[in-house]
Amino acid sequence: MRLRAIILGAAAGGGLPQWNCGCDNCNLARAGKILPQTQSSIAISGDGKTWAIINASPDIREQMRATQQIHPTDLRKSPVTSVLLTNGDIDHVAGLLTLREQQAFTLFATGEIHDVISANAIFDALNPRFVARETVLLDHPFMLVPGVTATLFSVPGKVPLYLEGAHVDTELEGEQTVGVHLQSDVTSAYYIPGCAAMRPDLKARLHGANAVFFDGTLWQDDEMVQARLSQKTGARMGHMSMSGPNGSMAAFEDIDVGKKIYVHMNNTNPVFRDTGPERKITKQNGWIIAQDGMEIEL
Amino acid sequence: MRLRAIILGAAAGGGLPQWNCGCDNCNLARAGKILPQTQSSIAISGDGKTWAIINASPDIREQMRATQQIHPTDLRKSPVTSVLLTNGDIDHVAGLLTLREQQAFTLFATGEIHDVISANAIFDALNPRFVARETVLLDHPFMLVPGVTATLFSVPGKVPLYLEGAHVDTELEGEQTVGVHLQSDVTSAYYIPGCAAMRPDLKARLHGANAVFFDGTLWQDDEMVQARLSQKTGARMGHMSMSGPNGSMAAFEDIDVGKKIYVHMNNTNPVFRDTGPERKITKQNGWIIAQDGMEIEL
Repeated sequence: MRLRAIILGAAAGGGLPQWNCGCDNCNLARAGKILPQTQSSIAISGDGKTWAIINASPDIREQMRATQQIHPTDLRKSPVTSVLLTNGDIDHVAGLLTLREQQAFTLFATGEIHDVISANAIFDALNPRFVARETVLLDHPFMLVPGVTATLFSVPGKVPLYLEGAHVDTELEGEQTVGVHLQSDVTSAYYIPGCAAMRPDLKARLHGANAVFFDGTLWQDDEMVQARLSQKTGARMGHMSMSGPNGSMAAFEDIDVGKKIYVHMNNTNPVFRDTGPERKITKQNGWIIAQDGMEIEL
Repeated sequence: MRLRAIILGAAAGGGLPQWNCGCDNCNLARAGKILPQTQSSIAISGDGKTWAIINASPDIREQMRATQQIHPTDLRKSPVTSVLLTNGDIDHVAGLLTLREQQAFTLFATGEIHDVISANAIFDALNPRFVARETVLLDHPFMLVPGVTATLFSVPGKVPLYLEGAHVDTELEGEQTVGVHLQSDVTSAYYIPGCAAMRPDLKARLHGANAVFFDGTLWQDDEMVQARLSQKTGARMGHMSMSGPNGSMAAFEDIDVGKKIYVHMNNTNPVFRDTGPERKITKQNGWIIAQDGMEIEL
């Protein structure tokens, strides 16, 4: 069975445009000169009838409205039967609040990510009579939707911003930030919207995949500092950059992967502009830049 | 100074269409045959430069993108300087998670509503270095934005669904559900998106207002039951209906109000359909049906 993927949202937290941001990209998006992009999420199916959503973005209602494949099929019946979380960041979990409304589905996440959710009573809006919270162990495959198994594995990252203490480990490996290995009988793909660094074990894991959707948050590490938007580098936020000797383009040079697709781009990322040199460089390096509504069959 | 109001979202929780709903209205909205509507929120200004948002809906990013008046005016500078909550329902508070991003504003709410927010660590995303949480006492006016004061008062309602216990008082009066009296030197308006019943004291209060924005959740009390969508009546959800002897149209017959505007309509409400008799009846009774993007100057 082939694997179908639909990019529901290609942007990182805040989206493009971000509500309070007057950077070039956000202004261009408001003016309709570049395509607006919603926050990071992907829909996955094997049979084309039953769908999983990986990460519930704050924009999920808008995303679902725009995506015919996941429109309801009856009075209160959604083809979405499971939701999987890769971390506890707001851009990946706030959409759970929209998925109330007495609809049955399974919420898959690691124990630590479930703990973050459970610590907030507002998520009790997901009535346990309808929503089963399944704890997933790292490196244990489970059925995500018919014909598709998922396996979670740790990638370097950090705890969500709203849980940061005085000291922050930005390359923590454990249950807080995970990648997803998606497999059907004929294909193998990875979804990794956040990754702080490329380690040898991750390289080895990705080798031979039909597709990798990978963290494309920033073009360069000091991009937000340069744009006078923040004092934070990509490294501080737990994201490796696209460019540079430690960037993801360089890291993937010796990994054999069918399709390489950047997801989770921050609104400042110059690859959002069609005409810029950065987008051309990603293409020359064999990368696809995801955009809302893009469909990929594997 | 005149009061400017922009309907950011005219629909109740779930919006139109709601993600998992296949009712007639939701299907018509997906097919582009009636206008989609986002979840309940209004922007208020006196000077037209500084804006308050009453209730932060889950759709706030989409709403702000669509509303030029509240686009950022600089790199990271929003004309929105305050946010006011009228209850703790998800359709009124989830959008706070979008208003992170190190932007200064004041969050106004009663003590009980602030307690609901504070009990959820995820709202720590609103960094206290930027977002001041101001507790407002009932019946004490405060400056919402320059030229506009707001006064909160209790209206019959209930606690948010996710906090409901075994016994639910659906006509509770206190700090959990409030109406807002908006005043400038030349005008007086009320915003009441949720109200379980019309009481004599509320009638007296509204008398003589230039405008009242009022709870239009359901057309009739058993509307969702009839549509086989839910077993809940409007009364059980803490909302009086538009029609019928105990409905809001009847209740307002002897209240002298300049403009009467229905807000917070549930996706099942037949008034969303331009051609139906229900919409005509509301018009004959002197009511305006709010819709996204509608501007009103008072």
